[in-house]
Amino acid sequence: MNTKNADLSLGSGDRDAGPRVLVVGAGAIGGFYGAKLYQAGARVSVLCRSHFEEVRDHGIDIQSIGGNFKFLPEQVIRHPEEYQGVPDFVVVATKVLPEVNAVHLVRPVMGPQTAVVLIQNGLFIEKPFLEAFPSHEIISCLAFISVRRTGPAQVTHQDFGRLALGNYPSGASSKVRLLSQWFERGGVECEVVPQVERSRWQKLIWNASFNPVSVLGGALNTESILKQAELTELLRKAMREVLRLAGAGGYEFPESIIQQNLDATLSMKPFKTSMLVDFEAGRPMEVEAILGNAVRFAMEKNVPVPVLESLHALILSVDRKGRMGGR
Amino acid sequence: MNTKNADLSLGSGDRDAGPRVLVVGAGAIGGFYGAKLYQAGARVSVLCRSHFEEVRDHGIDIQSIGGNFKFLPEQVIRHPEEYQGVPDFVVVATKVLPEVNAVHLVRPVMGPQTAVVLIQNGLFIEKPFLEAFPSHEIISCLAFISVRRTGPAQVTHQDFGRLALGNYPSGASSKVRLLSQWFERGGVECEVVPQVERSRWQKLIWNASFNPVSVLGGALNTESILKQAELTELLRKAMREVLRLAGAGGYEFPESIIQQNLDATLSMKPFKTSMLVDFEAGRPMEVEAILGNAVRFAMEKNVPVPVLESLHALILSVDRKGRMGGR
Repeated sequence: MNTKNADLSLGSGDRDAGPRVLVVGAGAIGGFYGAKLYQAGARVSVLCRSHFEEVRDHGIDIQSIGGNFKFLPEQVIRHPEEYQGVPDFVVVATKVLPEVNAVHLVRPVMGPQTAVVLIQNGLFIEKPFLEAFPSHEIISCLAFISVRRTGPAQVTHQDFGRLALGNYPSGASSKVRLLSQWFERGGVECEVVPQVERSRWQKLIWNASFNPVSVLGGALNTESILKQAELTELLRKAMREVLRLAGAGGYEFPESIIQQNLDATLSMKPFKTSMLVDFEAGRPMEVEAILGNAVRFAMEKNVPVPVLESLHALILSVDRKGRMGGR
Repeated sequence: MNTKNADLSLGSGDRDAGPRVLVVGAGAIGGFYGAKLYQAGARVSVLCRSHFEEVRDHGIDIQSIGGNFKFLPEQVIRHPEEYQGVPDFVVVATKVLPEVNAVHLVRPVMGPQTAVVLIQNGLFIEKPFLEAFPSHEIISCLAFISVRRTGPAQVTHQDFGRLALGNYPSGASSKVRLLSQWFERGGVECEVVPQVERSRWQKLIWNASFNPVSVLGGALNTESILKQAELTELLRKAMREVLRLAGAGGYEFPESIIQQNLDATLSMKPFKTSMLVDFEAGRPMEVEAILGNAVRFAMEKNVPVPVLESLHALILSVDRKGRMGGR
């Protein structure tokens, strides 16, 4: 194992020797993956804007297919300035929404060696961090998981959990490998990817198609989408446009990946996309991270994406209406 | 005036001398335009499947911006076989839905001189009638009107009311001109069009864009659509595809018609599209007449219409869900 800091080394089983982690955004994703690092023995704190008292007083209950346990963060804080010490990793797990300025939340705790770890959906979401912290490592993670917040301080892990992670825009440093080892120690399957942007494009094939269609088609789970020939064809067209866009970004995928995505989804238990879960809960959806950034990239690169543009315009409108309380 | 049948002539003011009209589908459109022919002095009967008793016993109340009145049909029937006599005109004003077989409803009353008059939305909706009654006149009408059924036997006319009508697929016979005169006598502004299919394409520019977007964008009236730049751009793209399709069908329109449609809509009081009204009432929407037929024509003609196909697949899904009671 190749690491410079002694306190980042694995194996002692002593929490004081574990890495210091601050999780920003202790929702379902942040709560779950923070808890897994905690289980591994890391010194995990959380920045928690809503339900601060519950989490401070009781920790976070993790109800998981892998077993239930209580996640007791080292520090529970409401503002970044309250963090004591310097974290080795700041894990950003907020929703990617125009109104959430995660860079602003992270800045006060950044030490010279602190790495920013993003566990978030979407495309190009690393760019604001790269611009704000050009001399820091940005570790970008994709989570393949079904997890929900089921109470103020309760997270229910329903299925999957794998992470793909690497440095943004590319590379896989010793810190990436170390973080992956800590996650694995907590029971999270990890894949270190040297081209994480490629992985983001790959995930977008599914996300940019299934997410908006699940909401716009009338609040449908994956099975209800895929049993309609016209919607399945619409998914194919949207996916084909993502492939063309990815190509313009320098990442080629074989056309066969479309059928693989459809088959893989059909083989899973029917589920609701993250956009649909947010829509049904009356919460803002990650429209710009998942579709808006792709559509703007298409404009820059002069790639025609009429289906993605249609989906974007419609889902943006539905999201706006929801924000006005009109849903 | 050029007409063969004495009882079709205008001017006597004697209802017995007026044309015999059977209105099939006494909803908002059928109720209103039937009532206008009745006001003009025609002998108007209605085939009424729902609310038969109310209409038979009390007629239909017309609440109109042009004045309120009671429409007392000559005959109110539940099945076409019950009609006594032979109508000069059968006015079909049912919704255009896969489950409504209007040809079947019309067949029993067709005499050798009976003309079929369609006051319906959509593209190519005349074809089943042309096939079923190849030796009869098919008169195709487009209604520009805001009218709603507001009770079992009450129709409220809110705005507009103009008809464009002509023979399908083309022409303007003496019967068309005569019908138009009877409508005008009842106070309905009419335009006799020698190329009614062209008029249908022209109306589709608006219908195929505004209708699905109004539902899919989150139940929006015209104003709420047009204040969103992304949705307005989506309308433009959908309209551009309709223009391309119309061109493939032999009807050219200038690109400027798109802006005209947007400007005209903006200048009107905000209103809900017919699809949105149906959607909100939990009724089936005219998806195939307005979008499905256009998309199938595009496939035949090999014209790419990705935006119309996207809107079609999504609105079809929303409609299916509504039919299953899932809305």
